[in-house]
Amino acid sequence: QRTFTSSSTWRLHTQEMNEEQLSSLKVNQKRLMEDLHHTCQWGTGERWGDAPTETGMSRLALSPADKLARDWFVQTTESLGCKVTIDAMGNIFAIRPGLNNIEPPTYAGSHLDTQPTGGRYDGILGVHAGVEMLKVLNENWVETQYPVGVVNWTNEEGARFPLSMVSSGVWSHSIPLKTAHTLQEIHPGTSTLSTALSHINYLGTVPASHTSTPMAAHFELHIEQGPLLEMANKKIGIVRGVQAYKWLTIKVTGRDSHTGTTDLKSRADALLTASKMLLHSHKVATARNALASTGILNLWPGSTNTVPGVVEFSLDIRAPHDDVVRGMLDTIETDFRKIAAGEDVGGLNTGCTPSLPLDVSITEDFDSPATSFHPRCIAAVSEAAYSALGPDGKNLVMEMTSGAGHDSVYASKRCPTSMIFVPCREGVSHNPREFCKEEDCALGAQVLLQSVLRFDRQRG
Amino acid sequence: QRTFTSSSTWRLHTQEMNEEQLSSLKVNQKRLMEDLHHTCQWGTGERWGDAPTETGMSRLALSPADKLARDWFVQTTESLGCKVTIDAMGNIFAIRPGLNNIEPPTYAGSHLDTQPTGGRYDGILGVHAGVEMLKVLNENWVETQYPVGVVNWTNEEGARFPLSMVSSGVWSHSIPLKTAHTLQEIHPGTSTLSTALSHINYLGTVPASHTSTPMAAHFELHIEQGPLLEMANKKIGIVRGVQAYKWLTIKVTGRDSHTGTTDLKSRADALLTASKMLLHSHKVATARNALASTGILNLWPGSTNTVPGVVEFSLDIRAPHDDVVRGMLDTIETDFRKIAAGEDVGGLNTGCTPSLPLDVSITEDFDSPATSFHPRCIAAVSEAAYSALGPDGKNLVMEMTSGAGHDSVYASKRCPTSMIFVPCREGVSHNPREFCKEEDCALGAQVLLQSVLRFDRQRG
Ligand SMILES: NC(=O)NCCC(=O)O
Ligand SMILES: NC(=O)NCCC(=O)O
Repeated sequence: QRTFTSSSTWRLHTQEMNEEQLSSLKVNQKRLMEDLHHTCQWGTGERWGDAPTETGMSRLALSPADKLARDWFVQTTESLGCKVTIDAMGNIFAIRPGLNNIEPPTYAGSHLDTQPTGGRYDGILGVHAGVEMLKVLNENWVETQYPVGVVNWTNEEGARFPLSMVSSGVWSHSIPLKTAHTLQEIHPGTSTLSTALSHINYLGTVPASHTSTPMAAHFELHIEQGPLLEMANKKIGIVRGVQAYKWLTIKVTGRDSHTGTTDLKSRADALLTASKMLLHSHKVATARNALASTGILNLWPGSTNTVPGVVEFSLDIRAPHDDVVRGMLDTIETDFRKIAAGEDVGGLNTGCTPSLPLDVSITEDFDSPATSFHPRCIAAVSEAAYSALGPDGKNLVMEMTSGAGHDSVYASKRCPTSMIFVPCREGVSHNPREFCKEEDCALGAQVLLQSVLRFDRQRG
Repeated sequence: QRTFTSSSTWRLHTQEMNEEQLSSLKVNQKRLMEDLHHTCQWGTGERWGDAPTETGMSRLALSPADKLARDWFVQTTESLGCKVTIDAMGNIFAIRPGLNNIEPPTYAGSHLDTQPTGGRYDGILGVHAGVEMLKVLNENWVETQYPVGVVNWTNEEGARFPLSMVSSGVWSHSIPLKTAHTLQEIHPGTSTLSTALSHINYLGTVPASHTSTPMAAHFELHIEQGPLLEMANKKIGIVRGVQAYKWLTIKVTGRDSHTGTTDLKSRADALLTASKMLLHSHKVATARNALASTGILNLWPGSTNTVPGVVEFSLDIRAPHDDVVRGMLDTIETDFRKIAAGEDVGGLNTGCTPSLPLDVSITEDFDSPATSFHPRCIAAVSEAAYSALGPDGKNLVMEMTSGAGHDSVYASKRCPTSMIFVPCREGVSHNPREFCKEEDCALGAQVLLQSVLRFDRQRG
């Protein structure tokens, strides 16, 4: 089956392979899917269908389930001949040697953590496609010019420790280690990110830094998490970049009072005011063709017959351009103050009893400016897509901008980067029903493999 | 100091006392306040002023702090010569014998539990005024015609176990014991009301029933919890009745989705929909000069970058008349369904992107129809108020309807009942800053004492 090359060794060298030889290296769809579902035994979520694999995932970062998935990743990549490094953020780098081991590896990477009610594909598919790449290279005795690696980034979701992509953020020197280590978990619990790392024994000694674990490039396969590919009947998204987003915390302070004895005009109802803000943020986003979303809301004291005195909620605002996100923030800052003061913003007060004024504070927790990926990586993904899709390729690919943030955003600050998207059913993600067809998973993994090999081959 | 009466014994008998002798029985303001603040060491809440007693209370029903306050109540009333009975709801009845001990006692009662961020007066004042009554009777060697009692009702607030006045509700056969015993606590925790009762050793063996612990009458001193007395410069509210209210749970079900990749029109955002409902409930209440309040709101899954798929919130609706509350419920049922379906109710959708339809379910958890107190008790309170206030009395009292529910609502179903209100600062209650002046506390206690004695004297 193997074709020996002109090389003096029995190994196949990427730089000596012709287009046909390269394209003939193929991922194994069955093995990829079996591996993926195997690791989904750790953190299995809500069932949505009858088949054994038709459940969601609930694998919060650094939870006991995440530890088991990590252990599998370390053991598997080591048994495939990789050297494994764990850094101070618990990022796991598995490196397969190349002909030249002085230069940094070309990476495939993503994350094994999920949302509390997430699916089996977001992040997980990208890591498994990386592992499948290692298996394809091994079984074909391929020796790359430079090392190739697979990286599992910690707490990409920001669902347990509320800063998404925090560990690639530290690696790229965009987020201070201290900020990351002292993050408090969101749900009832007392862990910080660093105590959680120690607790599961993944607080590595290697600095979390691109200078300690450098990368030649970072490629990430991911489900689109939106409906565009499916709607357009496309198979592969070639990702040019990622839209801008900010995460805000809004705190509204009014006054606790009795629901039965306090007339409406004597109230400073923090929840009623927060409701107006939420509705207004949606209008602000609509007007700009942008997004605004609240995923967390807490109130105090939390009793049926006490008007809440304090409400705190998250606000996630996104748009393709930085200036639109900045403009939304400006509008929100101005308008939320007016809403808290009791002014009628956009007719929200129609039919309402005027109440006492309240206070509002707005904190920016996270800022991810719009990202453009590297032309060389985008080109590698395009070539890989055409190689994988065959003659009909042109009709099956689509260039696009990612709506979600990914570790590739931070990776791209320190090395050439791009991403590969595959369609997911109805664009649903961050939901147990998230689903990507087996052949689409495999096609994405095939494009990832080919992208890494093509990038490796083109290196100086 | 004591005036011996025509009685053949050295004791003072209520039915033989003239108006002057009766009015000369006086509560001790200093002792009352010292006792009250003494028991506020158990469950002390947030500090709002510099004085040692300037803190709120946080004494959820059947908590360790509530147990200590209960223990104090049992020990104190027993040492004052009372017989103490604890029933299957943990209600504590302390009975001081009278000349005739066959007939049921005339009670003073209220509750020792508080809101999570409550004050030192709501409920607590009423129980302490009852204990002070016992002390006044003892130190003056007064023997009443029939027994008098003081009752501490369990979980009046409904703040830990979400059914207010639940234990007087069981006592009056308005709420089944099983419903009450199986109530789940609201905040993270796994107790039911009955396990919590056992845990602190207050699950009594006497049935919680008016047939086991009957009452001749129930008088309750309480802070007004609203601003009317203070605004009108009145000292005593003679309470004619209590407004109607219902507690509802609203559950909105949409779909979890990714905040970055799901465009606004492809969402079924349960929190945005709940915000519209909240705002609308406020408008519905405004239009009817009624009240609507949400004190609890929970959402799932609770992650910054996941649009919530499910939101559940409480809705407390109140008005003086039953038909207004029923009308509000009808409107809310109709309009919430429309809002969930995406219809524009009252212009709430102006400027919003239309989204996918959602589901809503509405559960009625609690219904307290409008209550009218008993003319004989209202008359006893009036006479007592004039006796306590002296010549200027007419200008200092006010007849009123209670905005809040009280155990007197359920007591009134089984025995003649009325209440006495005293002003509280700015009408603030269910808040740590809740405050009632010492002289107003004492005046209220004086009216309570006189009401009970006058009722006792008029009994056949
Ligand atoms: N892909 C993904 O869900 N990333 C989490 C960061 C974000 O919210 O965009
Ligand atoms: N008085 C008082 O706060 N009672 C609780 C029941 C209610 O919410 O009205």
